This record gives sequence, structure tokens and C-alpha cells, in this order.
Amino acid sequence: MKVEKISELTTNRLSIYLRCLNELIAEGAKTISSEKLAKRFHLNSAQIRKDLAYFGEFGVRGVGYYVGELHNHLTKILGLEKEHCVAIIGAGRLGTALTDYYGFSQSNFTVAALFDNDEEKIGQKVGNVKIFDIKDFAKVAKRDKIDVAVIAVPAQFAQSVLEKITQAGIKAVMNFAPTPLRVECDVKLKTVDLTISLESLSYFLAHSNNANGKNLKPNSTERRNAL
Amino acid sequence: MKVEKISELTTNRLSIYLRCLNELIAEGAKTISSEKLAKRFHLNSAQIRKDLAYFGEFGVRGVGYYVGELHNHLTKILGLEKEHCVAIIGAGRLGTALTDYYGFSQSNFTVAALFDNDEEKIGQKVGNVKIFDIKDFAKVAKRDKIDVAVIAVPAQFAQSVLEKITQAGIKAVMNFAPTPLRVECDVKLKTVDLTISLESLSYFLAHSNNANGKNLKPNSTERRNAL
Repeated sequence: MKVEKISELTTNRLSIYLRCLNELIAEGAKTISSEKLAKRFHLNSAQIRKDLAYFGEFGVRGVGYYVGELHNHLTKILGLEKEHCVAIIGAGRLGTALTDYYGFSQSNFTVAALFDNDEEKIGQKVGNVKIFDIKDFAKVAKRDKIDVAVIAVPAQFAQSVLEKITQAGIKAVMNFAPTPLRVECDVKLKTVDLTISLESLSYFLAHSNNANGKNLKPNSTERRNAL
Repeated sequence: MKVEKISELTTNRLSIYLRCLNELIAEGAKTISSEKLAKRFHLNSAQIRKDLAYFGEFGVRGVGYYVGELHNHLTKILGLEKEHCVAIIGAGRLGTALTDYYGFSQSNFTVAALFDNDEEKIGQKVGNVKIFDIKDFAKVAKRDKIDVAVIAVPAQFAQSVLEKITQAGIKAVMNFAPTPLRVECDVKLKTVDLTISLESLSYFLAHSNNANGKNLKPNSTERRNAL
């Protein structure tokens, strides 16, 4: 549990490094130093070295990193050499938008099935992806080797959908419903709450206009703690 | 810059507390202790106390927090007493899905305008929201008092869209394009890269099957650092 918790902070950055390496490979670069990588992609070179050292000795003194080799290592660390089959539950606007989200097709995730409980939607297709009855989730998930589920249903249905998913043996779930969900400890649940991201923008706007407001200014102790 | 960076970690949690308080208010609760709040919503009571103490003295010994009062404080801290007008750039599936995202309507964000460069889309509506020509961004943004912009265009167009947005004086931007963007330091850019979230699920799946793989296991130093 601890290992997993920690790794998310680092793996998010590894995902970013991998994206940068893709660009460098496309340009024909063979080697790159952490400093050049940082400068080119607006990253932090000490952080890059620390993140990579965490998983092994990838850098060579005086040379930097071999771009292709580091790319392969990061791909393996992130488990991206294996294809993942994704089910999206909820064939509304968000679910169908996610079905052809450009970023997914750039990675190793294939949306294999959509699920809904709306009789009118069931049986239809979004691009090449068929919409199934949510009642058939376990059967279709097994047949299509689904290993990642994405919840794109209204908040009030999210917990029951999550239970259906985990009962079918899915261990990795991405949730877009803006509500806290309870999950078994062997299941990895990643909630993407877009409202929280918007509210952090709201905070920024409020405080860039009112930086000296009473009770609104972080005190210096917290500032140090959080750095 | 530092204040803003720190606060995002905390403000994300404040957003979650606010959501919990909404539920408590709906149930008619008057007071709640940090322990009960934590237990009820699967949070950490010490973290709650620390986060709230950071902004002022909200708790009363032997009573806990006054639910309504704390709700008002958090609303003010997050700048949520003010309505924000959102423009979404890109009227594809993702942009239109975001236009009626349930979570936005639950918060103080109103999607006021969509923008696209596709002649066929310009002038149409998604629900009540009109699609404008991206060329008219500055004019419409000023007229409709847009203060938050959401980028939902393909990666290769994201940087030029961002520049158009910031030239119009928008200081808060949420980006869904899976690409790193460069931004002026007085603009708050929040990138929501769904692929990165999926890749953290991929990492979890890879490591729950192969926890002892060579070079894949975090070492104990990093584990301590990251805690």
C-alpha cells in the first residue's frame, strides 16, 4: 500500500519524461543530459536525476542518458509494454468523449467497450466501440480481457457501478464522478475530479486579487512545511 | 509564486472538505469534530486540523467545527462566493462534454461560451452555450467577462490557443491537451492529462503482478522521502 502511494507522485513525472523522450526519439537524438532534458522541457534536473535513480542506474557520467534505452526502461517501469483494455461505464457525453480521447490512443490503452443502462444506447457504437448493457459487465469484461475501468456516470450511481466493476475482478479504476468512493484495498482507484481542478483556479484568482485578505494568506510555517 | 504552488496541495483538500460539508448541511448537522468528519468521509483527522488551522482558528474545543460557519469560511477561502465565467476552446467531443459536466454546475462555474475554428460548428449551440469563432476570442471574452478558459483542442494547437487566451487577459487556464505548455508566470495553468492518470493505473497493475521485479521496486530511502 505504501509503495503504491509513493509511486504515484513519481510515476506521474515518469509519464512526463516518457513523453519528452518520445519527442527526442522522433528528432533522432541519441543521448541527453538531465540538464538539457530539464531545460528543453521546463523540468527540474535534480528531480529528474532523483526520480530515475530511484529505479536504477540509467545515467552515464559525461554522456547523460541514452534516449532509446531510457525510453525502454521507463516503458517497462510504467507497465506500458503491455496493452491494457479499457471499459468505459456511462455512454453520455463524457464517456463518449473519453472513448476517442487522443491521449489514450497515444499510450497503450485501448477502449474495448462502453456500458450503459439506457436501452436506447445499448447496441449502438461510438466509433468502433460498442455500447453494452451494464448488466452484462462481468461477462463482457472477462471475454474482452478488460483490466481498466473508467467510471463516467452521474455521482449518485458511481458507488454501485464501482462495486459491479470490482466484483468482476477489475483492479484499476479511473473515476470521473465528482464524489468520494469506497474501494477494497487491493483495487487502485484514481478519481479525476475536474471541479477540484477548477476550484484551485478559483483560489488562485481570489488570491491574486486579494493577497492580503484576512485568514486567506498562508502563514510562513505552512509555507516551509509544504516546500 | 511560492504561495500559489503550496496552496494547490491544500486547496484540493479544502475542495473535498467543502463537498463533505455540503452533505452534512443537507442532513441538518450543526457541528462536527475532525475525527467524525474524517471517519465519515474516509479522510485523515490530523490532516483536516492542519489544513484548517493553516487558514485560521475554526475549531472550538469540545464542540468541533460549526458546519455552516466552516462551510462559509471554506467557500470564501476558495474564492467560491464569486461566480466564474468559463470559456471552453474546442467544440469537439471533450469540449462539448465539459460544457455540461455535472460537477461544474455544482460549483460556481458557468460555461458562458465555446470556441472553435470549424466553420460548420461556429454559430451552433451546445445546450444554451453558443459556439463562437476562435478569432473573436478577445472580444467575446471581454463582453462576457470570461475569467477562466479551458483548452480542449488537439495537442498541436494548444500552445497557440493558450497564447490567444493569455493575450486576452485571462489569468486562469485549465488544459486538457496532453502536451506541456509554456505560460507567463502571472497565469495559473492547470493541466489535466488523463493519460498520466491512466499510466499510474498501468504502473499499479504492472507492480501488483510483479512487485519484486528488478529495478522496479522503490528503494527505502525514496520511500521515506516521499512520505
